[in-house]
Amino acid sequence: MKDLAGIGSPKDGGIWRLAFTDADLEARTFVEGCLRETGAEIRIDPLGNLFGIVETGRPGPVVMSGSHTDTVADGGRFDGSLGVMAAIEAADAISSGKGCGTFIAVDFVNEEGVRFMPDMMGSLFFTGRLEIGEVRSIRDAAGTSIGEELNRLGYAGTDSMSDLRPDFFIELHIEQGPILETTDHTIGVVTGVQGLKWFEITCSGTSNHAGTTPMQNRRDAVRAASRLMDHLHQLPDEMDGVRLTVGSVHARPNLINVIAERCVFTVDVRHPNPEVLSDAERHIRARVRAAEAESGCDISIRALADAEPVEFDRRVVEAVARTADESGFPARRMISGAGHDAQILNSVCPSGMIFIPSRGGISHSPDEFSTDDDLVAGANVLLGSILALMDG
Amino acid sequence: MKDLAGIGSPKDGGIWRLAFTDADLEARTFVEGCLRETGAEIRIDPLGNLFGIVETGRPGPVVMSGSHTDTVADGGRFDGSLGVMAAIEAADAISSGKGCGTFIAVDFVNEEGVRFMPDMMGSLFFTGRLEIGEVRSIRDAAGTSIGEELNRLGYAGTDSMSDLRPDFFIELHIEQGPILETTDHTIGVVTGVQGLKWFEITCSGTSNHAGTTPMQNRRDAVRAASRLMDHLHQLPDEMDGVRLTVGSVHARPNLINVIAERCVFTVDVRHPNPEVLSDAERHIRARVRAAEAESGCDISIRALADAEPVEFDRRVVEAVARTADESGFPARRMISGAGHDAQILNSVCPSGMIFIPSRGGISHSPDEFSTDDDLVAGANVLLGSILALMDG
Repeated sequence: MKDLAGIGSPKDGGIWRLAFTDADLEARTFVEGCLRETGAEIRIDPLGNLFGIVETGRPGPVVMSGSHTDTVADGGRFDGSLGVMAAIEAADAISSGKGCGTFIAVDFVNEEGVRFMPDMMGSLFFTGRLEIGEVRSIRDAAGTSIGEELNRLGYAGTDSMSDLRPDFFIELHIEQGPILETTDHTIGVVTGVQGLKWFEITCSGTSNHAGTTPMQNRRDAVRAASRLMDHLHQLPDEMDGVRLTVGSVHARPNLINVIAERCVFTVDVRHPNPEVLSDAERHIRARVRAAEAESGCDISIRALADAEPVEFDRRVVEAVARTADESGFPARRMISGAGHDAQILNSVCPSGMIFIPSRGGISHSPDEFSTDDDLVAGANVLLGSILALMDG
Repeated sequence: MKDLAGIGSPKDGGIWRLAFTDADLEARTFVEGCLRETGAEIRIDPLGNLFGIVETGRPGPVVMSGSHTDTVADGGRFDGSLGVMAAIEAADAISSGKGCGTFIAVDFVNEEGVRFMPDMMGSLFFTGRLEIGEVRSIRDAAGTSIGEELNRLGYAGTDSMSDLRPDFFIELHIEQGPILETTDHTIGVVTGVQGLKWFEITCSGTSNHAGTTPMQNRRDAVRAASRLMDHLHQLPDEMDGVRLTVGSVHARPNLINVIAERCVFTVDVRHPNPEVLSDAERHIRARVRAAEAESGCDISIRALADAEPVEFDRRVVEAVARTADESGFPARRMISGAGHDAQILNSVCPSGMIFIPSRGGISHSPDEFSTDDDLVAGANVLLGSILALMDG
């Protein structure tokens, strides 16, 4: 973990390993070396997803585990890396004689989607939801394509995984939220990933002089937007478990003494239950319509993203719960608030996740931190769960 | 008016005559030519304020009138220009034998303050509230100083006005608001300029993941800011005549799926009565404190500007009211919502203003419009008022 954290860490604690950069390749080469040491067979697919395959020689299922080693800009040392390093340790243990069937450790490409969209690109490609030609032509803000970077870095391989599809997938990750820490649990048994909807709401009014325009003559886009934002922020009080965030606000012309003609803001709303999430969307749309009628501004709403909630496979969830229980770690069932590769894998095989506490719920930051004890506990529960799945 | 509107009008209807640019100088040279035709003596001071002096040869006071010919970016053809062109017409009439004492038409420099701050710079310099050295060293965003532009353009003169101080000042301007149009009046008898206070309010919370952070664990700067903005917008409902505008909003990091750690917005609040304005400030500060206690975010408030309300001189106000009445124009007494050179002049001599209707209250825009009839009415009431003041 410590060696990996040194890669792409130019100055202080923050890690800069954006996908398809030199630092990203360096980290993957490091992971490849670790995997080779376990005796695993290495395969790299045409997008650069990295696999380490351990055949036990005993009949049994194909179990895959891993995560990603790319980071956001100025990210932390645990997000993604923990799941990859723990999978390498599992490969080492299985290589030494444990388990039945086949184990595959994986380091997926570009989970973060910072420089090149979409996120979870490696698992989307692995599960057949993205084509290689399509992915190679995706460009960053500077106009460089993924294909160009793959060629420049010598990053991609030519190996296929078509002969070896996983029967189960399991991923260890830091929580990125404060629940485990707050409730004093060591292990999160992740039962699913909450669904997400993104909206862009545009309030359009009339730009005018802040000094000369009487209040009753105004169509003030910021006034309409702030009232609507305040109303929307009350939705989680009324709908249990709904998380709602207005993260981005843009006013125009955005001048101190000019009534804004436009105010655009985003809404991120999440819930584990698809019906509650659809209900939340209906409430949001109703509030938009009411705000339009009340404010005198034109208010429009546009859907930007819609990710269905994911429910993880009962067998994987139970394997994790039993393992944590048998190891004596205080565990709780929980939903993942964030998106992970495991939710993509769940579309092709029974999948699940294990969380460990992250201090203060901080992630995507140099301040991201989990204790050594929790890291070890997570790796042990991961190995135990993998073996439980391999051994049926 | 039409010839002047052609200067700094590169493509469509919008006028670009930012102070201390080639287009600004071209407009002033045009004004200087018009003034020379009236037989006025031309003086240009070291900042470029342009004066046309008409001595009647008969004993009487010194009456000054005018406005400015600089515009905002993509501005209208009437703001400022009307007051200058009407003063030239008055100079012409007085030159032809009307009035007693001395008349001075003036075209003040940089009233808008778009490229170089502060606004109303020419009148501030003329009234001794800015020093020439200080003003010449003011720089625009690109680092060019006013002194450099004055030298490059050959814009400034060397004339002094110290021997000729006005006893009265009067300015004709478009209303820049909808009141005259809405109430069907041709002439606004301006009794004063409302006071103004500007604040910057900073809400500081904690940046975090929009998906993983439970609602009760959040310190969401946008949530705190939107609620506070909504509360502040209700102030004008409770305090008669208060105008309050949140024109500018900035969130950070301003990403759709990240809880904002900071949200900074501005408040522009205005009222003609200094006590009401101070009361409004107390209310704003109390609401900020309440919002801080309620939201869990740190919320700070910083004063950015504080302009006292101005009450115009009774003699000038009465001269305008009487003239409008005698001319048969429907007139109403009103407060100016915007700032003008006349409020600066009021600190050194009795001053006043005349408004004419502006369609829809639109100003600082290519859509700014006043009818020919109203322009002529305004110019006539200006001349009548000037003569009333000159003739005592």
